[in-house]
Amino acid sequence: MNQSNKGKGGRGGARGAPKQTGPGSRGPKRGQGARGTRPVVRDTAEPRVRKRRSGGKPSARSQPRSNRKQAAKKGLGGDQVEGRQAVRELLLAQKRPVNEILIIEDLDDADILTDIRELAADLQIPLKSVTRKRFDADALTMSHQGVLAKAKPLQERSLSNLLSVRNPFLLVLDGITDPQNLGAILRTAECAGVTGVLLPRHRAVHVSPTVTKTAAGAIEHLPMGLVGGVPAALTELSNAGVLTVGLEADAPIRIFDVDLSGRRPVALVLGAEGAGLSQLVRKRVDVLASLPLLGQLNSLNVAMATSAACFEVVRQRSQPDPSSSAVVD
Amino acid sequence: MNQSNKGKGGRGGARGAPKQTGPGSRGPKRGQGARGTRPVVRDTAEPRVRKRRSGGKPSARSQPRSNRKQAAKKGLGGDQVEGRQAVRELLLAQKRPVNEILIIEDLDDADILTDIRELAADLQIPLKSVTRKRFDADALTMSHQGVLAKAKPLQERSLSNLLSVRNPFLLVLDGITDPQNLGAILRTAECAGVTGVLLPRHRAVHVSPTVTKTAAGAIEHLPMGLVGGVPAALTELSNAGVLTVGLEADAPIRIFDVDLSGRRPVALVLGAEGAGLSQLVRKRVDVLASLPLLGQLNSLNVAMATSAACFEVVRQRSQPDPSSSAVVD
Repeated sequence: MNQSNKGKGGRGGARGAPKQTGPGSRGPKRGQGARGTRPVVRDTAEPRVRKRRSGGKPSARSQPRSNRKQAAKKGLGGDQVEGRQAVRELLLAQKRPVNEILIIEDLDDADILTDIRELAADLQIPLKSVTRKRFDADALTMSHQGVLAKAKPLQERSLSNLLSVRNPFLLVLDGITDPQNLGAILRTAECAGVTGVLLPRHRAVHVSPTVTKTAAGAIEHLPMGLVGGVPAALTELSNAGVLTVGLEADAPIRIFDVDLSGRRPVALVLGAEGAGLSQLVRKRVDVLASLPLLGQLNSLNVAMATSAACFEVVRQRSQPDPSSSAVVD
Repeated sequence: MNQSNKGKGGRGGARGAPKQTGPGSRGPKRGQGARGTRPVVRDTAEPRVRKRRSGGKPSARSQPRSNRKQAAKKGLGGDQVEGRQAVRELLLAQKRPVNEILIIEDLDDADILTDIRELAADLQIPLKSVTRKRFDADALTMSHQGVLAKAKPLQERSLSNLLSVRNPFLLVLDGITDPQNLGAILRTAECAGVTGVLLPRHRAVHVSPTVTKTAAGAIEHLPMGLVGGVPAALTELSNAGVLTVGLEADAPIRIFDVDLSGRRPVALVLGAEGAGLSQLVRKRVDVLASLPLLGQLNSLNVAMATSAACFEVVRQRSQPDPSSSAVVD
């Protein structure tokens, strides 16, 4: 979901043609508040996947690796986990096999590195201390903190499996393309008690190394599934008794006024950066709801919108601590 | 605020010494739920300020620029604005003088670039189309999208000035150090109708170029002030009748149960990444409130926590649309 434009609809809009092409289309456009012509806003974070490799020509070693990446792309991914918190959580969760761990050899001591070394020893996972150059040849993000793990890709869950928990609280992400946004969303979703996440199989980022880093271990705890088409999945969810709630900036109903208290399973549906929910998804959800925007600029990042929406579910599902005064002023 | 550790307090904690030093301290630590020994968690985003310069030795040109940066550091900053949305918003807002705009000469056409060119012409601001190399020599982020502007630094507001608006809704950021977090917070705060932001003058990031980019123009609309000490500012706010609410993971009172409806001015107080609120800030706020965390990992990014808390204020301050049904199930 991107919530641009509210309140200053006309400003700058006269300059814009309705369609943007080329790399320039990453820039935002304003003044197109009507449905179907929503502004295209490039979200804050750029993918930071490292393109540079240490060697010039592709080595014999790099070939199978590239193939493995291709294979992982068809599924959820998550096979290359980068970053200290993410790797430690991978080891602690013990939910999938880990092939090996690489750590840069000359890192300063840190408790979390000790944790990782001890956990790897306990679990009999090969841990290699390597030179920075050797590590860089394998690292796929720039924020790896000197630690990466190679694991079995995340297991895909079926929709019915995601609905088999008590009181399901699902997140349906309709085409998030920025890995930092997806990682941030997954990290927050885990905090908010989301019980399952659905992603489109195509035209969306899956669990890339940047996502593993940004999610900081949340992927080990969040069951995820891939669906061929989000609209069809929404119909299936509705038929299964799930209240599907699409977040959209212009919806007259505030998300705060939707009953998300858990009497009925709920699925929050978030659109892609900029484009928001697709036309068909808008039609298929049970209700369209908004986060009221009270500013002038009103360009809300999809991850931040997800956080606000998820914690509205938390509000409705959690109870005040009986030991604290109920209302504070 | 960082909300780690709830629910799985002991896991991995036995491995850790209470103090972390060196670069390794960026890694997260768990199992230290007690106040004052909160886990140090390096937040997701790394500063992406570009260190590489185009030339080897410092040129005559670079010297005054570096001095200007030093000068800006003492204030709010915001003098170098990077990114298309941020630069367009700078020009649209017309709240501070702009010295010049640089655009990479061979960018593909985009409406937002046309907007920027036309606005610059209207406002008689020098706009230079430069080579990528020339641009790179001036750019300070890696996500500039080929556009940057040099402007007068943001104007600092006094605390009393920030309180002179109707129904103040302030954000007090107690030591955010990651520019991407600060940028994301400012962007969201603007959406949520925050009327003013207070930052510490020292030991915190100000409005760096990365912040200008990530905030996507929000800095042009959000009045900001710098305070020598956050605890003293909180006392001043309380004395002025403002309800100061510190966000903390372990607080028994849910933020949802605090009256933020606007009957009284409010200031949300957020702590630094990892460290959370300082001891003194904890004592000085009128109330400590939590976002209940319902997951297992529960490592909530400070920007995401700010979004959830700000939209709780929005919930309490906004009214349902009378044309929509009040409660949807």
